[in-house]
Amino acid sequence: MANNRNCKILDCTIRDGGLVNNWDFSVEFVQNLYEGLNDAGVDYMEIGYKNSAKLLGGADSAGPWRFLDDRFLKQVIPNKKKTKLSALVDIGRVDENDILPREESLLDLIRVACYSKDVDKAIELVNKFHEMGYETSINIMALSNVMEKDLIENLEMMRDCPVDIVYVVDSYGSLEPTDIQYLVEKFQRYLPDKKLGIHAHNNMQLAFANTLLAARLGVEFLDSSVYGMGRAAGNCPTELLVTRLKNPKYRLRPVLDIIERFMVPLREKEEWGYLIPYMITGTLDEHPRTAMALRNSSDKDRYVAFYDQLTTPEVMHPKNN
Amino acid sequence: MANNRNCKILDCTIRDGGLVNNWDFSVEFVQNLYEGLNDAGVDYMEIGYKNSAKLLGGADSAGPWRFLDDRFLKQVIPNKKKTKLSALVDIGRVDENDILPREESLLDLIRVACYSKDVDKAIELVNKFHEMGYETSINIMALSNVMEKDLIENLEMMRDCPVDIVYVVDSYGSLEPTDIQYLVEKFQRYLPDKKLGIHAHNNMQLAFANTLLAARLGVEFLDSSVYGMGRAAGNCPTELLVTRLKNPKYRLRPVLDIIERFMVPLREKEEWGYLIPYMITGTLDEHPRTAMALRNSSDKDRYVAFYDQLTTPEVMHPKNN
Repeated sequence: MANNRNCKILDCTIRDGGLVNNWDFSVEFVQNLYEGLNDAGVDYMEIGYKNSAKLLGGADSAGPWRFLDDRFLKQVIPNKKKTKLSALVDIGRVDENDILPREESLLDLIRVACYSKDVDKAIELVNKFHEMGYETSINIMALSNVMEKDLIENLEMMRDCPVDIVYVVDSYGSLEPTDIQYLVEKFQRYLPDKKLGIHAHNNMQLAFANTLLAARLGVEFLDSSVYGMGRAAGNCPTELLVTRLKNPKYRLRPVLDIIERFMVPLREKEEWGYLIPYMITGTLDEHPRTAMALRNSSDKDRYVAFYDQLTTPEVMHPKNN
Repeated sequence: MANNRNCKILDCTIRDGGLVNNWDFSVEFVQNLYEGLNDAGVDYMEIGYKNSAKLLGGADSAGPWRFLDDRFLKQVIPNKKKTKLSALVDIGRVDENDILPREESLLDLIRVACYSKDVDKAIELVNKFHEMGYETSINIMALSNVMEKDLIENLEMMRDCPVDIVYVVDSYGSLEPTDIQYLVEKFQRYLPDKKLGIHAHNNMQLAFANTLLAARLGVEFLDSSVYGMGRAAGNCPTELLVTRLKNPKYRLRPVLDIIERFMVPLREKEEWGYLIPYMITGTLDEHPRTAMALRNSSDKDRYVAFYDQLTTPEVMHPKNN
């Protein structure tokens, strides 16, 4: 049992789930989710991306949660409660001029996602967001593909920057509990003064187990999403965290209510979760993009041919190009 | 990574999966599964129950895998290969006169399932099956509901009987990795000369993680089923074990082929896996029977009412009756 009383759940259903349905969540959906998460004791709700539509090539068909606007946000959540709000930004896709000082925004936490090679740029953004009063995190993606010497360099760079939270991110859902333990202990050794977070993917049905283990090891920020909704195999399910973390503030019932009213109907239209092509990219330690393309094709259940394509050396596939 | 080279995978798709579809597997299905598991390097295939139709109230509509007949089995598997065969029997439901000596049967291993209070009866059966030449196991079900003093008594009783393998069984899918570690270490302390096994259920998406952990701790017999098929939330997926156990004899591709050709079409007709009612009975540490009844009713997605029913003390439900 994870009995770390300092744990905080960060629900990223809208942000990571938006990668599934192009952020096509109604305002009613988001409002109900906020109320439900607040009732369940969930600490943070990540309500979208704060990337710039301009930098991503202008407005597109995506829902408003892809390019959060502070004025719009105040209409959506007119009465903010205990659950804090966060947004994610990507290196090179965020326009700093879009970010208001924290006292003028509903957002509490801005998280910066980057690859290992861009940690310097993430730190530069964190410096600015920290100045503006926000809590900040850096989420280095695809850790399973980073060489040890580069990771250590990243950790040393972050040690003296003002970032509050540094995340262990299993982007490909390829890490087992022993791998998570290895990474968490390394992060703790190099970043003794930072809080840690974990963002797990469920390609091998290990997202909840990896998150529970991280909590037991002292990781404080636990990412999840309701019914596991998130890109490809999805995330650690919020319902499992609230029912199993040993903290009386968490309640399962409000999350069940959200699942019953919103997530089951949504899952009938949109696809995420443990599906064999995502398991295959997970066990091969690869980005799920090839599996997502397969699921959008008429060959979506041709697993053996897909596996052969990814594992036959002479066949070119995205990772080898 | 689990690198226990002594691990053996026991696939119980037909036996535990039969609880989903009333053992309605065609001979072609079972033959293809046997070939696929053999190609994948899976060590044992549990091909059904060897209970007595008479003791269960005569023949019923169940498929032949519920009441295995040795002559029939030889027609199904005329050319036995490397993968061994096992069958499960339940205390009080097996007629010992149905069991042939091992040299006249295709079965290698007979597993006896029982509750804690019936371990004496299980040992009596094991003595007979052992005499007849079979490998044997005892699988004490519902360990999470057994008091420590009774469990220790069970373990001491089994220590000096000829049983080869003793299983840690998480019948309700309610155990976390820390619980599995606690039980495995206890079993190892009391049964230093026995091999151990694990049978995990997936109510909280922990079956694979619990099985991996057990393997790392020295548990040798790992139960699984293809695509996780098994009662209610199902089992540890065979495809995850073969792809992640560090033993070169295991191969993922033949299991993918079985999933693609047989399990995906079957899953469209039959239901198992991570569904919220099973998560609820799992986290509450209860038998899934109430959740199975719910899934067979028109209220199948009314999770909040179901949760209220199981958690309101003044409402009677099966566990309290």
